[in-house]
Amino acid sequence: MTSEANPATSHLDFRSDTITRPDEPMRQAMANAEVGDNVIDVDPTVRELERRAAETLGMDAALWTPSGTMANLIALSVHLRRGDRFLATRNAHVLTNELGSAAWLASGMPDVLEHDAGPGRPTPRAVRIAAGTRSGPYYALRTTLLCLENTHNAAGGAITPPDEHAQLVATARDEGLLVHLDGARLWNAAAALGLPPAALTVGVDTVSACFSKGLGAPVGSVVAGSEEFVEQARRMRQMLGGGVRQGGVLAAAGLLALDRVGELATDHDNAKALAAGLRELGWDVGEPQTNIVLAAVPDVRLTLESLRSLGVLTLPMAGKVRFVLHRDVSADDVADALGRIKANAR
Amino acid sequence: MTSEANPATSHLDFRSDTITRPDEPMRQAMANAEVGDNVIDVDPTVRELERRAAETLGMDAALWTPSGTMANLIALSVHLRRGDRFLATRNAHVLTNELGSAAWLASGMPDVLEHDAGPGRPTPRAVRIAAGTRSGPYYALRTTLLCLENTHNAAGGAITPPDEHAQLVATARDEGLLVHLDGARLWNAAAALGLPPAALTVGVDTVSACFSKGLGAPVGSVVAGSEEFVEQARRMRQMLGGGVRQGGVLAAAGLLALDRVGELATDHDNAKALAAGLRELGWDVGEPQTNIVLAAVPDVRLTLESLRSLGVLTLPMAGKVRFVLHRDVSADDVADALGRIKANAR
Amino acid sequence: MTSEANPATSHLDFRSDTITRPDEPMRQAMANAEVGDNVIDVDPTVRELERRAAETLGMDAALWTPSGTMANLIALSVHLRRGDRFLATRNAHVLTNELGSAAWLASGMPDVLEHDAGPGRPTPRAVRIAAGTRSGPYYALRTTLLCLENTHNAAGGAITPPDEHAQLVATARDEGLLVHLDGARLWNAAAALGLPPAALTVGVDTVSACFSKGLGAPVGSVVAGSEEFVEQARRMRQMLGGGVRQGGVLAAAGLLALDRVGELATDHDNAKALAAGLRELGWDVGEPQTNIVLAAVPDVRLTLESLRSLGVLTLPMAGKVRFVLHRDVSADDVADALGRIKANAR
Amino acid sequence: MTSEANPATSHLDFRSDTITRPDEPMRQAMANAEVGDNVIDVDPTVRELERRAAETLGMDAALWTPSGTMANLIALSVHLRRGDRFLATRNAHVLTNELGSAAWLASGMPDVLEHDAGPGRPTPRAVRIAAGTRSGPYYALRTTLLCLENTHNAAGGAITPPDEHAQLVATARDEGLLVHLDGARLWNAAAALGLPPAALTVGVDTVSACFSKGLGAPVGSVVAGSEEFVEQARRMRQMLGGGVRQGGVLAAAGLLALDRVGELATDHDNAKALAAGLRELGWDVGEPQTNIVLAAVPDVRLTLESLRSLGVLTLPMAGKVRFVLHRDVSADDVADALGRIKANAR
Repeated sequence: MTSEANPATSHLDFRSDTITRPDEPMRQAMANAEVGDNVIDVDPTVRELERRAAETLGMDAALWTPSGTMANLIALSVHLRRGDRFLATRNAHVLTNELGSAAWLASGMPDVLEHDAGPGRPTPRAVRIAAGTRSGPYYALRTTLLCLENTHNAAGGAITPPDEHAQLVATARDEGLLVHLDGARLWNAAAALGLPPAALTVGVDTVSACFSKGLGAPVGSVVAGSEEFVEQARRMRQMLGGGVRQGGVLAAAGLLALDRVGELATDHDNAKALAAGLRELGWDVGEPQTNIVLAAVPDVRLTLESLRSLGVLTLPMAGKVRFVLHRDVSADDVADALGRIKANAR
Repeated sequence: MTSEANPATSHLDFRSDTITRPDEPMRQAMANAEVGDNVIDVDPTVRELERRAAETLGMDAALWTPSGTMANLIALSVHLRRGDRFLATRNAHVLTNELGSAAWLASGMPDVLEHDAGPGRPTPRAVRIAAGTRSGPYYALRTTLLCLENTHNAAGGAITPPDEHAQLVATARDEGLLVHLDGARLWNAAAALGLPPAALTVGVDTVSACFSKGLGAPVGSVVAGSEEFVEQARRMRQMLGGGVRQGGVLAAAGLLALDRVGELATDHDNAKALAAGLRELGWDVGEPQTNIVLAAVPDVRLTLESLRSLGVLTLPMAGKVRFVLHRDVSADDVADALGRIKANAR
Repeated sequence: MTSEANPATSHLDFRSDTITRPDEPMRQAMANAEVGDNVIDVDPTVRELERRAAETLGMDAALWTPSGTMANLIALSVHLRRGDRFLATRNAHVLTNELGSAAWLASGMPDVLEHDAGPGRPTPRAVRIAAGTRSGPYYALRTTLLCLENTHNAAGGAITPPDEHAQLVATARDEGLLVHLDGARLWNAAAALGLPPAALTVGVDTVSACFSKGLGAPVGSVVAGSEEFVEQARRMRQMLGGGVRQGGVLAAAGLLALDRVGELATDHDNAKALAAGLRELGWDVGEPQTNIVLAAVPDVRLTLESLRSLGVLTLPMAGKVRFVLHRDVSADDVADALGRIKANAR
Repeated sequence: MTSEANPATSHLDFRSDTITRPDEPMRQAMANAEVGDNVIDVDPTVRELERRAAETLGMDAALWTPSGTMANLIALSVHLRRGDRFLATRNAHVLTNELGSAAWLASGMPDVLEHDAGPGRPTPRAVRIAAGTRSGPYYALRTTLLCLENTHNAAGGAITPPDEHAQLVATARDEGLLVHLDGARLWNAAAALGLPPAALTVGVDTVSACFSKGLGAPVGSVVAGSEEFVEQARRMRQMLGGGVRQGGVLAAAGLLALDRVGELATDHDNAKALAAGLRELGWDVGEPQTNIVLAAVPDVRLTLESLRSLGVLTLPMAGKVRFVLHRDVSADDVADALGRIKANAR
């Protein structure tokens, strides 16, 4: 039913930061959460998480969702009408990792922006060209939305810095586009830059962010925007079946997760160590900006299998092998993995 | 943001069994749950819940979902193609309480079956007539699915007994229809009849059921069917954003919930007591079959307001006032509510 | 590929007024039509037809469509958003004869109004009850549209007279609903009442009407409403693939069709003659209001076959046998058909 | 309501071959067409056109549609399921000129193939890479369809020759992909190569083609494939509102159009003359392969306006100025246009 069997405990699991398990304090917070029926009423812990997430992200309001996929899907569904085109970067999560729901469910026809300003980053010029003219004839697609992703997963956890972000948003505004930011790992960008997350959302209409990746919560994401957006988003969440009852048990973990943004620096250090170690072993690996290490290899499938046989679990991403660092792999684990790879290479 | 403020603690809350809060054992089970990444891998507790739910429901396989709405939506989306008509009972949850997703997302054009065999129950004859002929021309709607609901919420928690269920399913089969059973409260029907839940799913293609209603889990439902169905359902769940990571923290609650089906009898007793008490006070109330009491009143809005002023919280349902009994209201609470209503009536 | 072979010329074809073939003047008008590219430019004959149709229907603007199904689909798609419910009469064309596109494509969840004021006509009271309250919670379906049908096909070409129409529209307005009128055969209602068609569209937001039924044009319908509606409708038509180039060749036939509304009285006389004749033969037939005769028979399929063996072609409709009178069957043909049935009955 | 006013008669109209008006023989054929009700029965002229089109295109069966947009939409809707990705060439008509219906209505998430084998032509290698592996996990997009376009409109009427076509189809097959060919102007490719159209459809599952472009019919296209495909397509056409009644009046024009494929050579000669003339005047114009001339200019909007002021009508296409040659502009018209441009340039 699923693609892979559960790995043995001796495995070193770099497949994703989504595999992080809630730790003891998080489990206790969940066990003690104050809850309510968040569909017909309000769950106080969900409300508190939404309030804090909105504040942290620099938005007016926020809505809890069961997944980042649903957070993005809701944002796009609210923003797009039939016949609208949206711009997204090559290999963006909304294009390649959400089963096409941006197209068939949110009604968007995508147009791909290359990473021509650097990994994960389009140039404002590319946005302007792709946006096209504002006043096409009735029979023409209308580009209405720019979708950014920070950090950019398929680009190896690449950061769009605040000044470039600001220029992209300004260009989008100038072209009459809405802006959605897929910030599943926005926390990593903030931690790496030493900036508050809100510094990376300036000017966007909506932003999604996940508690269940590097921050270690078991389940839960958020989509944030204006009060009016959140009102529409709440209805869309209910339509999709994402309205849950005593969500406070999950939101309690999210609240703790928000306190841990700074701790992501450890993952970034580990990523740098892993990349350096792999390079020493002759691998073609760029310098990681956050918690993701991409390795270019001649045959991805072969390397994945080979690493797996060593107990080093990874996943393919955009034609490369992706290692994700996270709170459930330590510096020692990185050294262990490098050791196994080195031993195998002899 | 929501329709109603969180009620004060002195309130007696009959609005829904969805408001039930997880108790201490459930919270501990959640805190201690073994978990995994249930998207890219398998969460062992979710897997165990799915296994037990499938067994309990008499199906080959099951899939956890964040809500009953998503469970139904997935089933209908897998079953229906564009241009398909489905049959559902008047005021069925899929028709009136899921924001139209059966139509716009699952592609179904509904046809309504009256409750002509009794509350919540259509006759096999009505199914046969509505199903129409098997071989219409290419330009005709094709009826392909019968959707049943047991217990039937809007019919006041009404039960479809096994023999009638069997006849409806046989008729549907004979007409070439698939059968989906919305069993959000199937547990209540089983408890009331003293039968295993599987006795009430005989012959269906798919069934949904909820852990987060009378059984007291905070979040979670399930949709069950064949192995092949669950494979397609898993993909649809991911598309909708219902794929969550360490879902085991919620599934642990679901496992405990499954042990509590028998306890629902208490809610049913309380429902009978409430109905009897209301009748004594001159209310127009039928005999409840499970945990829902519907009262016909001259002006629903007025009565809701009046009850609310007494601290007795209810919701409207199908033109009546609905009281739902559940594990968070006791026999004493029922007596208290009756007392308040009586005092007010003087 | 289709359901029935092309009938021999000796057949009397009462299947539908859609079978009417363009006559010589119409063919000449088509051959001589001034045309243009109506997608990137304007076809002058289409423009003239849209202008005249809007005027005749008493609306600000109109848009040509290839079919009545597309006209209705466009109207509903523009009016409805996801999660909207619309009201339509039992067996309305949009519910039963358009392959569910009102649900899956236009996003509407239907609610059925019974014909409680008479054939094809709901009462204002039923509209009011079905519309529900204006201000439900965010998780509730919102009823936003009333869809009427005049004449009502499945109700046997039944007319909603202007005063009842006005009351229904007023009620809808009072409940905050938009109103779409499926006027595929509005011309028949106008002809039967001796009123201009615009007298039957008072207060509606949109109306569809067909040139290719009793009026004898080969292809073409129209959907009319405000200028703003037509602008949105034009875009939706293009999305659906209904934007055609030199449509003037068809619009020329539509212009002639508009001159022939008065001639429909002949079809109505023939319908009355047929109904009277069938009743004389003991058939259970009501008095036709326009050009459709519905006969209640014990076994529809059997009667259809039997009539077919006599060369009398009909179709089933809403559980009855439907005879449609039109310009390609004469009073003599009616007599001929009655003669064949009488001879067969001996 | 439309984007441009109807041009004066002295204008030279190079905007599109869609503007071609039916000539006298075509108008007479339409006036004399034998017709029937093609929804509930069969229109003999439509049937004959579908038969001949299927034969000409080398397919088993064909279905008439009101437009090429609907022909493509039907093919993609039949081929794609939710969560499917399809491959299409950059600036393909299905991506940029059909209002996103491939995404929101046909459920496809597009992936763009560059023209890396030449204008309008991807390499088999690019198809193979984009198709990805056959057996991804359940949560991954599945690429299921390759969409080709021959001639390729935005690439300037560029031809994919039979051998390259065959390699692309073979690669798609090898990767498990279906193949749809947008052959709106396939006739031009056939005429330019001196091959029967069927030589350019070898191995595809479906192909669309238009009668209303260079061949001069006023309205109508076709989508062709297997008998089973056409059966599903007929149902989809009806859903979209593309089922028309006496379509024979249009099909009669289509039949004549099919006799005129060879005449397209004149348009191709005129295109070469126009391109040569423009180059002489210093324009940046490639050698046209068929009837489309693309000119790279510094400012498209400015050039369009300037040409318009000379009575030379063109449209923008893929960032260039597009001239389309067709049966309603003669060699003299080309000379006239060049004269006007030359005079203006002095």
